[in-house]
Amino acid sequence: MSKILVINGSSRENGNTEMFTSLILKDVPHQSIHLRHHTIIPIVDKRHSPEGFTPVEDDYDHIIQSVLAHDILVFATPLYWYGMSGHMKLFVDRWSQSLRDPRFDFKKEMSKKKGFVIICGGDNPSIKALPLVQQFRYIFDFVGMEWMGYVIGKGNSPGEIMQDQNAMAQAKHWNQYLQSL
Amino acid sequence: MSKILVINGSSRENGNTEMFTSLILKDVPHQSIHLRHHTIIPIVDKRHSPEGFTPVEDDYDHIIQSVLAHDILVFATPLYWYGMSGHMKLFVDRWSQSLRDPRFDFKKEMSKKKGFVIICGGDNPSIKALPLVQQFRYIFDFVGMEWMGYVIGKGNSPGEIMQDQNAMAQAKHWNQYLQSL
Amino acid sequence: MSKILVINGSSRENGNTEMFTSLILKDVPHQSIHLRHHTIIPIVDKRHSPEGFTPVEDDYDHIIQSVLAHDILVFATPLYWYGMSGHMKLFVDRWSQSLRDPRFDFKKEMSKKKGFVIICGGDNPSIKALPLVQQFRYIFDFVGMEWMGYVIGKGNSPGEIMQDQNAMAQAKHWNQYLQSL
Amino acid sequence: MSKILVINGSSRENGNTEMFTSLILKDVPHQSIHLRHHTIIPIVDKRHSPEGFTPVEDDYDHIIQSVLAHDILVFATPLYWYGMSGHMKLFVDRWSQSLRDPRFDFKKEMSKKKGFVIICGGDNPSIKALPLVQQFRYIFDFVGMEWMGYVIGKGNSPGEIMQDQNAMAQAKHWNQYLQSL
Repeated sequence: MSKILVINGSSRENGNTEMFTSLILKDVPHQSIHLRHHTIIPIVDKRHSPEGFTPVEDDYDHIIQSVLAHDILVFATPLYWYGMSGHMKLFVDRWSQSLRDPRFDFKKEMSKKKGFVIICGGDNPSIKALPLVQQFRYIFDFVGMEWMGYVIGKGNSPGEIMQDQNAMAQAKHWNQYLQSL
Repeated sequence: MSKILVINGSSRENGNTEMFTSLILKDVPHQSIHLRHHTIIPIVDKRHSPEGFTPVEDDYDHIIQSVLAHDILVFATPLYWYGMSGHMKLFVDRWSQSLRDPRFDFKKEMSKKKGFVIICGGDNPSIKALPLVQQFRYIFDFVGMEWMGYVIGKGNSPGEIMQDQNAMAQAKHWNQYLQSL
Repeated sequence: MSKILVINGSSRENGNTEMFTSLILKDVPHQSIHLRHHTIIPIVDKRHSPEGFTPVEDDYDHIIQSVLAHDILVFATPLYWYGMSGHMKLFVDRWSQSLRDPRFDFKKEMSKKKGFVIICGGDNPSIKALPLVQQFRYIFDFVGMEWMGYVIGKGNSPGEIMQDQNAMAQAKHWNQYLQSL
Repeated sequence: MSKILVINGSSRENGNTEMFTSLILKDVPHQSIHLRHHTIIPIVDKRHSPEGFTPVEDDYDHIIQSVLAHDILVFATPLYWYGMSGHMKLFVDRWSQSLRDPRFDFKKEMSKKKGFVIICGGDNPSIKALPLVQQFRYIFDFVGMEWMGYVIGKGNSPGEIMQDQNAMAQAKHWNQYLQSL
C-alpha cells in the first residue's frame, strides 16, 4: 500500500485548504505535516561556494526525512498572492540543499514518488491559480516526480469551500481514487 | 523625479540577479533593500479572526514604510523552483496584514505606484519563468499597481547572466528608459 | 430559462469532445452548431482600412446571429496542437468583424452572455490545455462575457474520454448545474 | 549556412507583424511564405479512420515541402484574440496529417530544425501573449524542434510597433544574432 504524506502549507488552522484536504483524504491512511508548526529558515544559496551548504539548525531535515519515507506527496496550500504560501515556498526552496546532501540521491529518491496538488483560493482561483499549477508541474518535472493531478477549490471566508460544488465533485472523485490505491 | 526602490529577493550576494539588476539601474538614482538582510516571519492569517492581525516584531514594518515612500518598485528575484524566492514570498504574503493596517489605505497607496519585475533563472527561464510573470501581474492588479514590464535573464553559475545577449539588450533598453524618467 | 448554444469545433464526428459535451449537456435543452458543417473563411483584417470590412459570403453571419440569440455559449473544442481547433479559431477571429458591424453593438450583446469552455485532448491536457483556458479567459474578458468555468477531459482514441474518471465527475457536476438553471 | 524560412500568419499586408519581422530579418538571407496568399483548408481528423488521411487539394503540401527544406523556421503571427491567427492555426493543425505522411518521417525531420516565434499584438501583449508562447513551446517540444526564443511586440494601428522601444531593442539583438549564424 502506498504511504501518503500530506504537506500542508496553511498558516491558519481549520481553514478552507485544510477542510478541502480532509475531504480528499477522508478514510485514506496518511500522515500530515503542518508546516506552520515547524521552523524552516530561508535557504542561503551556497551552490556555488567551495564549502557547499552548511547544516542548518531547524526542522527541515526532520521533514525531508519524512518526505523520503513516503510514496505519495500531497502538497496542500492556500493561494496566497497567487502563489504557494511562504511556508510552503521556504520548504521547497530548501530542496536545493537536499540536492547536494551526500546522505542520499535526492532526485533519484523523489523520482520514485508521485505527487498531488491541492490549492484553495478566494479570488477566482480556477483561473488565477493556474500559474501555480504550472509552477508545481515544473517542480515535479525537475525532480522526476510523477504528476498525479491537482484540484483547485474556491474559498475565502471560513468554510466557504464547502459551497464550491465543482470542487466537492472533484474531492469525491479523488477521495475514491486514493482509497482504491 | 520618481523615487525608485529595488526590493531584492536573492539569498546570495553578487549573484546573477543582483548583477542583472545593477545593469538595469546603472546611473539611475534609487534605494535598495536586500530582503536577506532582514527578518520577515511567515504571515499568520488572521483575516477572519475577530481580534485581527497582531503586531509582529520583525523588520517588515520598516520595509513596508520604505515601500510606501517610493513611486516605483522594482522586484528583483532569482527564479527559485520556478517561483519567486522564499525571501520575496514571505515579504509579499505579509501584504495581507498591511491591507488591514489602520495607519494607511494600503491598496490606495499601492495603486499610485508603478512596478517592474526582474527575474533571473538557470533552467530555461524565458519559458519557465512565465508563470511567475503571470503571478506578479495578478499581484500588481490586485493592489492596482501599474505594470511597467519585466525582464527575464538566464544565469546559473556566477556571472553567467552577462552571456545572455538578449537579456543584455533589454537591460540596456530599460536602463535608458529609467534614466529618462 | 436560459437559452444555451453549443459551438462545437471538432473536425471529427462522434469524437471525444462531442461525447464529453453530450454528457455535460444531457437532458439540458440546447442548440448545437458544428463548425465543421459550415464554411468560415479566414478574416481579412480591415480594421485600419478606410472602407472597413466588406461583407463575406460564407456561413459566419448565420452563426453569429444564432450566437446573439442565446444566453449561454458553450465552446467545445478538441485540443489541437495545444490550442483551439482551426475551425474554432476561424470563427473567433471573425468577431473582429462583428465588432465593426453596424447592425448591433457586439461587445454590449456579448457582455450579457455567459460562457463555458469544454476542452478534450490526448497529451496531458490537464496541464497542456491551461494556456488555452487562459486564452479563452482573455477572450471572454475582452467582450465582457461572464466566465462560468471550464472542464478539461483526456481522450485520444475514440471513446477514451469515458475512462477519465475526474472528467466524468466534473461532467456530472456541470450537468446537474446546467439542468438547474 | 542555415536556411531560414519565415512563415507569416498575418491577414493584412504591411501590418505591424510584418514590419517587426522585417526588422528582425534585415540583411538576413531568408525565404518568406505569407499564409494569406495560400489556401489551406481545415484538417479533417482521420487519425482513427482505417483508410487514414486522404490527400487534400490545396496549398498545404507545397508549403510543408518548403518547411522541410529549411533549417530555421520563424513563426510570425499577429495576436488575434490572444492566439495565433486562424491562417497560422489552419497550417499547424494540418501537421497532424504530415505525421502520417508516408513520404517522410515528419517528427524526425522537424527535430532537426530550430524555431523562433514573433508575436505582435495590441492589447497588452507582453502579458496576454504568454499563453501563446507556451502553446508554441508545447508545439515545438512535440515535434522535437529546438526552441530559439521569441519576441513580443506591441502594435495596433499601422506602424505602431516602431514605438515599442523594448521590442526594437530585442529586434536589433535577434537581427545581429541571425546575421551571425
